Amino acid sequence: MHTIKLVLEYDGTNYAGWQIQPNGISVQQVVEEALARLLKEPVRVHSSGRTDAGVHARGMVAAFTTAKGLPMRAFSDGLNALLPPDIAVMEALEAPDGFNPRFDAAGKHYRYTIHRGERRSPLCRHYVWHARETLDLAAMEKGASHMVGEHDFASFRTAGCAARTTVRRIDAVDLALEGDLLHIDVKGSGFLRNMVRIMVGTLVEVGRGRRSADDVALLFRYPGERFAGPTAPPQGLCLMEVYY
Amino acid sequence: MHTIKLVLEYDGTNYAGWQIQPNGISVQQVVEEALARLLKEPVRVHSSGRTDAGVHARGMVAAFTTAKGLPMRAFSDGLNALLPPDIAVMEALEAPDGFNPRFDAAGKHYRYTIHRGERRSPLCRHYVWHARETLDLAAMEKGASHMVGEHDFASFRTAGCAARTTVRRIDAVDLALEGDLLHIDVKGSGFLRNMVRIMVGTLVEVGRGRRSADDVALLFRYPGERFAGPTAPPQGLCLMEVYY
Repeated sequence: MHTIKLVLEYDGTNYAGWQIQPNGISVQQVVEEALARLLKEPVRVHSSGRTDAGVHARGMVAAFTTAKGLPMRAFSDGLNALLPPDIAVMEALEAPDGFNPRFDAAGKHYRYTIHRGERRSPLCRHYVWHARETLDLAAMEKGASHMVGEHDFASFRTAGCAARTTVRRIDAVDLALEGDLLHIDVKGSGFLRNMVRIMVGTLVEVGRGRRSADDVALLFRYPGERFAGPTAPPQGLCLMEVYY
Repeated sequence: MHTIKLVLEYDGTNYAGWQIQPNGISVQQVVEEALARLLKEPVRVHSSGRTDAGVHARGMVAAFTTAKGLPMRAFSDGLNALLPPDIAVMEALEAPDGFNPRFDAAGKHYRYTIHRGERRSPLCRHYVWHARETLDLAAMEKGASHMVGEHDFASFRTAGCAARTTVRRIDAVDLALEGDLLHIDVKGSGFLRNMVRIMVGTLVEVGRGRRSADDVALLFRYPGERFAGPTAPPQGLCLMEVYY
């Protein structure tokens, strides 16, 4: 058997998220169907994790096994010819036996992008959150610094999150300006459901002056008891890279 | 009467171009309909020029006249609430009587973006031309330098172009790299139909080594007689700004 590792880019706008589910088309389903056409056998693809509806990826990692010894080009250019324009394989390579994209992952990099322009931007509408108000970036950076380190993120997950433990290690929360865009780059060992979007929603509350930067620290001192900010909308989020 | 100048941003992906036409929905039509709803009177909008189907704009300039003395915010935020997500007014201001966005324009800035990555990118597919081959940037810059200045661009227009004169002044053709993206910024006094896209198609032929950089000079020495390169696809083109 061969274990093939795929690095996928996709525009999540028109999908119900990564994972196969009854309502709506998922990225996983489309990739599995394209692979089944290529290999002429049913294929089950495992990923490094889920992305929600409307969330994008530049470096989602997925893997599958097959007995067929096709050249790697079949799984990159060949598969790309079968995938729709909003999904593409950026890299395909043979992984060691037993490679598990989820459990072998050492960490992930997510980027959340906020558009600070006065008016909504048609050209980036699918890839940013338009936060019209003036944001206090220094306060946001201070709030972000409280998030770095190993903390109990119980206040930073949605009701549906099934994770048993809520302690995670965040290695970096960096803010970077690019014209009217504000990128928030979050790197960490693991993430709870909607955790990045709630981190961003909390930082935007800080930037708007509705919450103090130091209030972020209290969310970790009383995990699950104090309320974090709202969940930022999905289209600003992109899974940039999974580290192994 | 008030003359109102609008600066519009739009994603041209789902439109048949700027100008009203029988087949397909145009940006002009959508803007006129939103204005008619706002002003409760029929409105005719005049623009600095057309953009073709699939071409985008960050700074299209349009103008209309009305007897109604609404505050400018009605024509920016108010109109934006009536426009679809892929069209927005970025600026609205009262212009001098008789302002004509087309004839008063002193020049325009277009940006064409080429994606040089090995594989197609789902996330920028609507905004770039994916030119997979390696491009010789030095040769392209040399070719571009031949385009700067006042020349007869008769070889750089489509069959349907109705312009009577074909001499235009190009002030700059600048190449700039941004990761896998190559931006070609073209500034000039005026443009023939498809001129920028044919300039880009010609420069890509130079970059691919299919045409020498100095061959570009011959296109101006024998205007309309020698063939320029193919017309680059529309989605890579964006009207950035109109100068007055």
